[in-house]
Amino acid sequence: MKLREIGEFGFIDRVSEQVKDLLLPGYLGIGDDCAVIPFTGKEDYMVTTDLLIEDIHFLKNRITPEELGYKSLAVSLSDIAAKGGTPVASFLSIGIPAETEVGYLDSFIKGYYELSRKYRVQLLGGDTTESKEYIVINVGVIGKCGKGEARLRSMAMAGDIICVTGCLGDSAAGLQVLLQNLPRTHDHLRLIRIHHMPDPHIKEGLWLAGYPEVHAMMDVSDGISSDLPHILKSSGKSAVVNLDKIPVSATLKKVAPRHGWDIDKLATSGGEDYVLLCTVSPDSFERINAGFNTAFGRDLYNIGGITPGKNRIKWLKNGKEVLHTQHGFDHFSA
Amino acid sequence: MKLREIGEFGFIDRVSEQVKDLLLPGYLGIGDDCAVIPFTGKEDYMVTTDLLIEDIHFLKNRITPEELGYKSLAVSLSDIAAKGGTPVASFLSIGIPAETEVGYLDSFIKGYYELSRKYRVQLLGGDTTESKEYIVINVGVIGKCGKGEARLRSMAMAGDIICVTGCLGDSAAGLQVLLQNLPRTHDHLRLIRIHHMPDPHIKEGLWLAGYPEVHAMMDVSDGISSDLPHILKSSGKSAVVNLDKIPVSATLKKVAPRHGWDIDKLATSGGEDYVLLCTVSPDSFERINAGFNTAFGRDLYNIGGITPGKNRIKWLKNGKEVLHTQHGFDHFSA
Repeated sequence: MKLREIGEFGFIDRVSEQVKDLLLPGYLGIGDDCAVIPFTGKEDYMVTTDLLIEDIHFLKNRITPEELGYKSLAVSLSDIAAKGGTPVASFLSIGIPAETEVGYLDSFIKGYYELSRKYRVQLLGGDTTESKEYIVINVGVIGKCGKGEARLRSMAMAGDIICVTGCLGDSAAGLQVLLQNLPRTHDHLRLIRIHHMPDPHIKEGLWLAGYPEVHAMMDVSDGISSDLPHILKSSGKSAVVNLDKIPVSATLKKVAPRHGWDIDKLATSGGEDYVLLCTVSPDSFERINAGFNTAFGRDLYNIGGITPGKNRIKWLKNGKEVLHTQHGFDHFSA
Repeated sequence: MKLREIGEFGFIDRVSEQVKDLLLPGYLGIGDDCAVIPFTGKEDYMVTTDLLIEDIHFLKNRITPEELGYKSLAVSLSDIAAKGGTPVASFLSIGIPAETEVGYLDSFIKGYYELSRKYRVQLLGGDTTESKEYIVINVGVIGKCGKGEARLRSMAMAGDIICVTGCLGDSAAGLQVLLQNLPRTHDHLRLIRIHHMPDPHIKEGLWLAGYPEVHAMMDVSDGISSDLPHILKSSGKSAVVNLDKIPVSATLKKVAPRHGWDIDKLATSGGEDYVLLCTVSPDSFERINAGFNTAFGRDLYNIGGITPGKNRIKWLKNGKEVLHTQHGFDHFSA
């Protein structure tokens, strides 16, 4: 049996099973955006790590080194944001072909530093080594939060409103612009920028974690059609999502029809949005949304609700159920 | 200018320079075996991360998956040992070609788990992704120690005795057995085993860190001729090393002459020994050595001394100075 057949999550399940007897009480291990470590002291600590490999996660001739440096850190910071944490320190391991220009690496670090400085994240260590052909990047980030205050995937409750902290689909559209080598209008460049330099929702995550009525949180890295099921599985719940309510940027609405793109598909399955997905107690939603709007100048977008049941998402469009397939959404034909 | 021209340490220096203004007081960043993070609470925390790439750090057809899993964790645990810390948790990022057999991965995790269990290190997270051709492994480990008790490379004092916690050269000899495809006698297999499954000196590091008279510590990963200079540079000191006093196993003494190997070279420049290198106050050395011998059944091997001065190692053989070159040691010919 090949890895291809069991997939990433199949492998992770096997690993979890093999090592679970070592897990100590109070520690959160494999299966959320971050691990959570209690330690002594006033805080809990979060750790996340992301591996990026050339030609798998990025194409060297399509992303500038500054953007690559920025994005390498952004994806891990987003995991800290997703638990309501403050990032403290990062660790950068990088494997580089010996023929790489030093100027390329300086630019990479410049982009990495730019985002580090924005959120005051210290680069405290890492590893540097030669690689054969491909650039390999692993970023680990440590964050912190108040004791017991990390927001986990397992905390969704039936009745909760499902929210996202920003527009979906722009990043996936930016990737399409790159892959299809489309002409670069101002709008297309904006989409590419969102794909290459996502702003991790650190401030949003911290703000939300200040409310006990905000329950489960995670970041949207694979698209909500892949990510929401993690919350549902961990919490033992189901969900209803209104495709009409998913926030989409004016840019995407304008650009998509020109290229025949399915906006619903990009917004739910495109991935790499790096906004936060959270569930909020229905009684408090209006108040929290008002506060969020004051703080961030946009809504905490209500896209659906958590329901009792197990691991099922019911997708609604114009009030009618539609079927989610690998090609997008279809009306039930049966 | 290419990376090849400035090298790993040249690159690390450039990175340190670019990010140093983000470093907060009380944090130890780039430039030691681990970062040290104060946090609140009773302890300090250590973080280390190591990147291993197929065909650079290991040959897939020369190391079993169990050994690879074991060694991937061992090299990072050794960094925690080197600061006198207790490892708490590990994070495994792995990039794997999709055609890899699941059985291979299960064996890898088995080896990783074996060492995790030995030192009670929880595997709390990581990342799994596809890679093009090569296996890529990044292991991060978090450890802890009493506040301010981490042993740094910068703590050596003039007059200190330089010690190592185990024999040197076996691992490098094991690598030679593999690379030269030598016949596998019992002795050769022992050397290969030490190369593939080094035992990180966690217990030795913890024991040594219990004595304030033990000053600088680090682990021997590149060989003492490359590693000792890090202590000298960080501490602003020089050193004298007696080649005659470097501990070498009976196996290596027996095997080396058969293959024309230079034992001094293997023991000082071979690398991957993963024993600890430390400096001890001369007044306390005898007492500490006696205690170490009782605890571990072998000496804390005295191989030389720290002297005033800057970054110079004086190598002695039979009481006479010899010159260390890339080919080994030469008598001064000038």
